[in-house]
This record gives sequence, C-alpha cells and structure tokens, in this order.
Amino acid sequence: MTTTTDAIPKGARELCTPTVEEAKRLAETVERVAEKTRLAAARFPETRDVVLGGSFAKGTWLPGEADIDIFVKLSPDIDEARFEEVGLKVGLEATKGYPRGKKYAQHPYTEARVEGVVVNIVPCYDVQAGQWKSAADRSPFHVELVKTRLSEAQKLDVRLLKKFMKGVGVYGAEIEKEGFSGYACEVLVLEHGSFVDVLKHFIHLKAVAPDRLLTLPDPVDERRDLAKAISNEIVARLVLAARAYLKRPTLQFFLGKTGKKRPNLQAHVIGITFTHRESSEDILWGELKRTMKHLSGHIKRAGFALARTAIASDDRRESAFLILPEVRELSAIEKRLGPSVVMEREANEFLAKNSKRAKLVWVGEAGQLQILQNRDEVRLSDFLRRMVRGEIAKMGGSPTISRAIAKNGKVIEGRPLLRAAKRKGWLSAGLNDIVSDTLGTSPG
Amino acid sequence: MTTTTDAIPKGARELCTPTVEEAKRLAETVERVAEKTRLAAARFPETRDVVLGGSFAKGTWLPGEADIDIFVKLSPDIDEARFEEVGLKVGLEATKGYPRGKKYAQHPYTEARVEGVVVNIVPCYDVQAGQWKSAADRSPFHVELVKTRLSEAQKLDVRLLKKFMKGVGVYGAEIEKEGFSGYACEVLVLEHGSFVDVLKHFIHLKAVAPDRLLTLPDPVDERRDLAKAISNEIVARLVLAARAYLKRPTLQFFLGKTGKKRPNLQAHVIGITFTHRESSEDILWGELKRTMKHLSGHIKRAGFALARTAIASDDRRESAFLILPEVRELSAIEKRLGPSVVMEREANEFLAKNSKRAKLVWVGEAGQLQILQNRDEVRLSDFLRRMVRGEIAKMGGSPTISRAIAKNGKVIEGRPLLRAAKRKGWLSAGLNDIVSDTLGTSPG
Repeated sequence: MTTTTDAIPKGARELCTPTVEEAKRLAETVERVAEKTRLAAARFPETRDVVLGGSFAKGTWLPGEADIDIFVKLSPDIDEARFEEVGLKVGLEATKGYPRGKKYAQHPYTEARVEGVVVNIVPCYDVQAGQWKSAADRSPFHVELVKTRLSEAQKLDVRLLKKFMKGVGVYGAEIEKEGFSGYACEVLVLEHGSFVDVLKHFIHLKAVAPDRLLTLPDPVDERRDLAKAISNEIVARLVLAARAYLKRPTLQFFLGKTGKKRPNLQAHVIGITFTHRESSEDILWGELKRTMKHLSGHIKRAGFALARTAIASDDRRESAFLILPEVRELSAIEKRLGPSVVMEREANEFLAKNSKRAKLVWVGEAGQLQILQNRDEVRLSDFLRRMVRGEIAKMGGSPTISRAIAKNGKVIEGRPLLRAAKRKGWLSAGLNDIVSDTLGTSPG
Repeated sequence: MTTTTDAIPKGARELCTPTVEEAKRLAETVERVAEKTRLAAARFPETRDVVLGGSFAKGTWLPGEADIDIFVKLSPDIDEARFEEVGLKVGLEATKGYPRGKKYAQHPYTEARVEGVVVNIVPCYDVQAGQWKSAADRSPFHVELVKTRLSEAQKLDVRLLKKFMKGVGVYGAEIEKEGFSGYACEVLVLEHGSFVDVLKHFIHLKAVAPDRLLTLPDPVDERRDLAKAISNEIVARLVLAARAYLKRPTLQFFLGKTGKKRPNLQAHVIGITFTHRESSEDILWGELKRTMKHLSGHIKRAGFALARTAIASDDRRESAFLILPEVRELSAIEKRLGPSVVMEREANEFLAKNSKRAKLVWVGEAGQLQILQNRDEVRLSDFLRRMVRGEIAKMGGSPTISRAIAKNGKVIEGRPLLRAAKRKGWLSAGLNDIVSDTLGTSPG
C-alpha cells in the first residue's frame, strides 16, 4: 500500500477550527454558569472547588459541538447520599432560569441548556490521583492532562481525529455505537503525536488478544482500558477507513463518508418492527442488542444462515431488528439424527415418537438412527412470525423488549418494509446501513 | 418391549433343514473329490494330510447352499512359492474333467464346479494352533471346533441364524455387504447357546467402544476379532431386526423381510451411473466405497447436506452412486468469511480478490472481513455434473473409478433414472434400498 505524506486535505483544518466568535461566546457562557456554580457551591461546607471540563475547557471541541462540564469537587469524607444531594442542589441553583433536568451516569447530575449550549454540572470527589471514589473523579485529571500535555497544534489534531471518526462512523461512546470517546481521541494523539500518526498506527494495528483488537490504557489510571467499551467491529472499521484515507486523503472523510450502498439487497432484508416503552438510550440499546443476539442464535439453530443483522431505533418508542439472511428458505425435508440403536430405551422412544411421521427411517454407518421428515417451517419469515407470536418471550433476551415484540411486533419484508422506511427516517437509516459496504473495502 | 417365548415359527426349521437326499448326494460328491485330492496330494512329499471343511463338513449348511472346502495340509517348512505351486497342482489334478479355475484369497486356490456344487481346494500349512503361517491355517481348527462343540440341535440353530441373517440382509462377509460370515454365526450360537439366545443378546447389545458396536473373538485365536469386517450399520440392522422378530416372530424374517419402501422418495434421488473395467468383486466394491466416501465429502463441503447414499453395481461393468439429498438447492447468495482486518496483507489480498465480485463487503463483530456473493452453483445436480466432467479425477477416490466416471459418467434423476432402473435390475435394487426404511424401525 502506498501512503501519501502527512497531507491534510484543503479545508479540513478550517472545518475543524472554531471561530474566534464562537470561542468568545462560549467563554462568556461558561464564565457566567461557572460563577453561579461557585456561588451556589459556597453555601455548602462540603464543597472544595469548582473546575471546568469538557471539550471546550480542553480546547478540543469541534465547531458547534462543544461540551461544557463544570465539576463540583466535594469532600471525600461525605457519604454517597450527601454527595448526590449537594451535587444536585448546586447544579439546580447554578442553572436557575434555564431549561434543565436530572441525568444519570454512575451518579445523578444536572444538565441545562444555556444560550443554546448544553452545560453539565457534575459532582465529583476531591481526591488524589488513584484514590477514586466515583467515576467522575478522574475527569479533572483528564482535563489537566490534555491542557498541559497537548500543544495547540495537537489540539487541532484531536479535532481532526474526532471529525474524521465522526465522518467514518466510529465516534461516540454510547452503547448504540460502541465507538471512540473524545478522551480516547485525545489520548491517541498524545500517544502517537498527530492525527496522521494515529491513522498510521491503525493501518498496521496488531490484535492484542485473539478476541480483542485494541487496548488503550488511560494515562491517568493505567489499569483502566479506554478501549474496553469499543467494539472490535468499530476498531476494524477505523482500520479500513484509515487505510482508504491514507491512500487518498479527501475532505469527504471528514464530512461523512460511507461504504458503497447496495440498494438491490434491500429486497432481501426481513424486518421485525415494534413499539416499546421509553427508557434511557443506554438501557434501550443494551436491551435491543441483547435481544437481537438471542434472536440470531435461535434463527441459526433453526438452520437459517444469517449474513448480517442490524438494529434500528428512533431511540424513543419504535425500534426494528433487521436481518439480511443468507438462507431464507430451507429444504422441504429435513434429516434428524437419533440415538444409536444400542441405546435401547432411547432408540425405542425415538422410534415410537418419530417413525409414524417420518418419510424414511434408517441407520447410518455409525449405527445411529436417522430420519427424514417434512420440515414444519421452510421460510425464515414464517419462522420469525411464529417467534413474534409468542416464542420470543421464552428465548432469553430482554424481557421488556421480548414482551413488546410479542405484543405488537410485525414481520415485514419487501415493498411493505421499503414503504415503512420511507415514512421513518430511523428505519431508512438502518436499512441503508445493513446493505452498505464497510468504508475502505472497495478497491481503488 | 414384550418378547415372545423361544418359539420358532412354523415351517422355519423345515426351511433350514436339508433333505436326506441332498445330504447323501453331497456326501458322494465330497467323497469323490476328496479321494482324487488324496491321490493327487500323495504325489508331493510336502503334503501331510487332506481334511474336509466348509459348511457341508460342519453340518451347518442351508439347503442348496453348501460350501465344500478341501484343505490340503502342507509342511510348514516349504516356502511360499512352493506352497502355492503344490496347492494349485493338487487342486488342478483333483478336479480334472470339471469346469475349474484359479481364485485368490491371501493365496491362490482352485475352485471347481462338481455335479452342480462348488468345491474349493485350498492349501494350508500343517501347523499347531497359534503358529499360523497362512490365513487358511485356522480353517481346519474352525471345522474341528464346530464339529465337536456344537450339538446337532445347535447346528440347526446355526442354520436358522444364517437364514434369518440372509432374510434381513445382514449375512455375507464380502466387502460389498460387510456382514456376518458363516463362521461368525457358528461362534455366536456356540457362545449364546441357541438361535433365539443370539437374538436376545443382540436386542440388548452394548457398544464395545464409542465407534464400535460389536467385537467377536475367534475361539481358535482370541486375538482375532471376527467382527472387525462387520460394519456398525450391519450390526445395528441386526439389532433392530432381532427386536422386531422377538416381538412378533414370523416366517417372513427367514424368507426375506425388508423395511417399508417409500417409493415417493425415488423422485428425489440423484444418480451417477458409469461403466468401468471388470475386476474381482472385492476390489471393485472397495474402490466404489472409497470413491463414494470422497464424493460425499466433496458434496458436503460444497454446502449440500446429504440424507443417505448408496452404491449399486452389476458387479461386472456397470455401477451407480445414488444420492438422496437433504438439500438439493442452495441459496443464490453465499456468505464467505475473510481474514481479520488487522492481518494487513491477507486482508488486502482478500479485498483485491473479492470486492469487485462481491454483492456486499463488511466487517463482523470480531473484526473479520465478510462478503456476500452470488453462488456459482445452486443446484446439486449442476455441482455433480461439473464433478463428473473432470473435478472427480482430482478428488482423491479410486483412480480407476474416478477415471471411469470422468470418461462416461452420467448424472440422472427423476424419470430418466426410473426408466434406467426398469431396464437394470441392479440399479432398481439400489434405488429400492435407498428409499427403504431399515427393518425394525416401523412401529407395531
């Protein structure tokens, strides 16, 4: 493979550099909320400090996509209940007058929209490095690391890397995506030097274990692996995208570049659509993934080979499982293996149970009973319809999702599926995904 | 399972008992040839004795099916060349005036037809038990064992057992059948006491090893396993037939009883018919079996599941492989797995080679490349036609048979196959076999 020099395509740097105006406006907003937070914090003797975080504070935000985090550092001596109470009270007080609400990570925190910008007010314990008491305690150390160890030029590299990752669809730490976080991008640039060096690292990536492509220790806590929540598929897609980019670096990679779409295959896709109750995206996607995994297992055990599966969701009340089958119709007869004839009781039971129905009963070379019988369900769509009508509830996926499917799930394929996708953007996106090549797999 | 008493159905004993006239006529023939053999043997100083063997000498022959063996015992001091020379010279001299020829086992011997009866004149070494020098040396010991240890009643039991085994299709030590020999029947009755006791033993048979249902040590040489050449399938069929017989013992089991025939399935059978050069049945069947095994492996690896296969032959110049497929048509698209993307060279090669042709290229959860492509051959009959046109020669079966198939093999199915079977008894028999249940698998 020939790789081009460190060239960044014309326009990419501009695309990834916020304007002076944006920076100034954000700085004013941050200062305003930070000041209010400090005042609110001062009312509680347990507060120790208020520090700024998020991509804005670190100087690694992309235009229009700044995160503003305000960390309220609390005494490590207080218990969890008090920790949460003080954290939320400070957050609410500081964002009074703005649309705001309670969000949940390991602990609850306050999210508010201030002058068009999302601001998070997050409590953490004021601890020494390594003495972590809550998940947020590392964050001020992350901020410090990025601010002091990355040069201004490298911060641009982080922004290029983030934009590139977004463009090729591997950015985002939520469970739906299982992709790279902003902090992972910062650590990668810190480790490899520049945007292009990060990509160069990935094109020659070596797997760290037979079932694990990537490991990425947190410099602030070496025992923590930042790649733990990144799927192998995402890493593999970054590898392929990096190879394609270094071969021919174009601005399109930063703007949104996907693999070739194969619309002809849409006619092969079978979907199960259903509505369900709302929950947080993390919980919803966890349940959807778990259920899809069980469903795939059932489909395969029934003899239908699957090519590819996908999940689509509006992230609120509607979702769909999409299946691109390799085999959508099985042979009308099936062979079943019984016990060896010398297992007398089992053999007699097998014969009593099956020989009436069988189309042929014989013994194989090993002395095992074998039968040919008519298959109950030849078509995958029939199998899925039966699953949806009730079997799905017993199959061991998420009870919430299984119950929702048993209640209102529909198996659709062909034109009805395409028509539904025309009305629903999220379904259309899923349908496009499942029939699209992975970026970087096409020749040239 | 309820088993009836030791009842032998009416007519079975008569069926298995030669007439006094037959016995007398055979005795005269044997005496005539034995006398000539003794005279011929006397001309060679290396001959020690002439002894009678075969089912006639043992009193275990079925009406019209007597074997007459005359063993010429030779000095253990002579070499193999002289052993064969003297053996053949004695045989030819003793059968002068009758149609006769040379046959091969471990050593050549003389076979002649004397007054409608086949007589074998077989050389062996005059050794003590255990000092075996040729395969035939044990035979006089077998004769002695049966003559002295089996009562007259038990000899009838041996004949009943042989007739039963013939009737249910498990008798015959030739490689085509891989069934029970006459001597195996004698040893079984000796061991278990009677015909019915042998069957009772088989209905509760326990496997001797995970891949071996039966062992049957030769009482004359315990290291020799008489069951070694008996296939598990044959043993299993005897087990099922014994269970069916003991449940309802009818004369039909002795006259020829097979499992239910399923003529509807004949339409599913695909055959490869071909002609080949003549050879001994043992060699021919060995080659046919080996080739069918390789062919089955190739078919399965191509993705077509097989239900059952059979070989049919006229034992001279025409044979056929018969295949009852479970899957006769695969999906039009197939999925193929490539290397992990981190195996850089292999991944690049895989993509360069496949992505043009692919209908879809993506990475799976494990980071492995995957493609969907159009399948070359969807129908099993097309696959077989391509095999027959040349691939078969490379597949590693018997070169003689593979070359014969490549030269004149034909893939036929449906009506043409049924028409061919109408003209050819051996093909019709094979076609019946492959669509017939194993005896004893039907309820009641």
